[in-house]
Amino acid sequence: MTVDMDSLTTAAPRTIRELNRTNGLDRNTSGLCRGFVQANLVMLPEADAFDFLRFCVQNPAACPILEVTAPGQWEPVLTAPGSDLRTDLARYEVYRHGELTECHNDIRDVVTDGMVSFLLGCSYTFEHLLFDAGLPIRQHEQGIAGAPMYITNRSCVPAGRFRGELVVTMRPIPSERVTEAVQLTAAHPEAHGAPICIGSPDALGITDLGHPAWGEAVALEDGDVAVFWACGVTATHVVRAAELECAITHSSGFMFVTDLPVIS
Amino acid sequence: MTVDMDSLTTAAPRTIRELNRTNGLDRNTSGLCRGFVQANLVMLPEADAFDFLRFCVQNPAACPILEVTAPGQWEPVLTAPGSDLRTDLARYEVYRHGELTECHNDIRDVVTDGMVSFLLGCSYTFEHLLFDAGLPIRQHEQGIAGAPMYITNRSCVPAGRFRGELVVTMRPIPSERVTEAVQLTAAHPEAHGAPICIGSPDALGITDLGHPAWGEAVALEDGDVAVFWACGVTATHVVRAAELECAITHSSGFMFVTDLPVIS
Repeated sequence: MTVDMDSLTTAAPRTIRELNRTNGLDRNTSGLCRGFVQANLVMLPEADAFDFLRFCVQNPAACPILEVTAPGQWEPVLTAPGSDLRTDLARYEVYRHGELTECHNDIRDVVTDGMVSFLLGCSYTFEHLLFDAGLPIRQHEQGIAGAPMYITNRSCVPAGRFRGELVVTMRPIPSERVTEAVQLTAAHPEAHGAPICIGSPDALGITDLGHPAWGEAVALEDGDVAVFWACGVTATHVVRAAELECAITHSSGFMFVTDLPVIS
Repeated sequence: MTVDMDSLTTAAPRTIRELNRTNGLDRNTSGLCRGFVQANLVMLPEADAFDFLRFCVQNPAACPILEVTAPGQWEPVLTAPGSDLRTDLARYEVYRHGELTECHNDIRDVVTDGMVSFLLGCSYTFEHLLFDAGLPIRQHEQGIAGAPMYITNRSCVPAGRFRGELVVTMRPIPSERVTEAVQLTAAHPEAHGAPICIGSPDALGITDLGHPAWGEAVALEDGDVAVFWACGVTATHVVRAAELECAITHSSGFMFVTDLPVIS
């Protein structure tokens, strides 16, 4: 099956999920399915689910909760009925005792009974809104799929074994349009909401924008300001540090596409 | 110790909690500690905590989460550091297998190891804002402590054993000021947010405003419209229906007063 970018941009979420299910698509979902909410996936053993849910509730900017499944339920009935979280993402990563041990494109044979799935908001959701408002998406202009991510000096509010620093994304925004970017994203707490810091990497303990912890560096153009949003990779970061027996996440940038429309 | 209403209205949350701790105050907290967030309390066995937290996340208008403690931790460190949830409310109710079995003003001998405490938002928080804007608080004018509560025909999104109908409060608002009431409360999702229905009890399956399920009926004056907000008693309603071995809640209207300021 051949798929072109234009059709992916306007594709229905179900189409993308079905392509992933048959391994017919293996790409970053930035820019796909415009108008629909995208999600980070975290799967954990039931015994760790309460503390992790508490962690998400306490750190809503980084980990906005879209849906939490019942133990052993693979269909997110509220956000994408009919889908299967074990097959409908392009790439998965498996962490055992904190170490990345495997990558898969189907985890039906990997999940264990009673695992709980968390779908958490993603900034890909609001990039559509910035784009529609005519704001430049510098990483796309520079041929880079996703915004660069940095580990900050800010501690999340801990819950049980889950603790660690806040991770942020950075997007260069022309200084005279930062207000628009704030207003557009503030209306979307389900996609990390408003920026948590504007213009000063130092304030977050970020010493070198040229070396993100994940993703590729994106250059600021003349007149751009670095704008930082809380990032769902915070979840992966603290889950990994918790050294659980087993945890499964999406691969960075290869998000789950829900049926929830972005309400602008 | 004597306490007058004027001093209670402007009292610090800590003062009210200390009065409760020494059983020096036994009153509904409506109107107390203006400017501070008040909370519903639900305490459950650890085994039920994940499903109940999932219930709250899925039903945020009724059950806005202010804090969830770690199992067996009685101090809500984020919302009222230094307090003790076992003593700092005026009245508690204990439900065993769904039946109200006891009322207490101190539950240090009642809680069991590993119980989890949930603090959920309360509309007493936003009544201050309505009052400050000059909107009439009809129940207070009519000598009634709290707004009347009704069980609706709307089902909450279930989670495990937790399922049931949405409970709402009703406040009569002059028709030309309903917009203000919507705008003021919409800015406070931590206190149930905007009304879920305006002007039509029938739409919620409420056939007789004269007979609330909890509290006393409040009369509409000429030109008033009945305005309905999601209510934290929804939590008590579904917890009771779940017939847990043991659950503890505040008594209706006798809320926990947090140190969180109401940001208007």
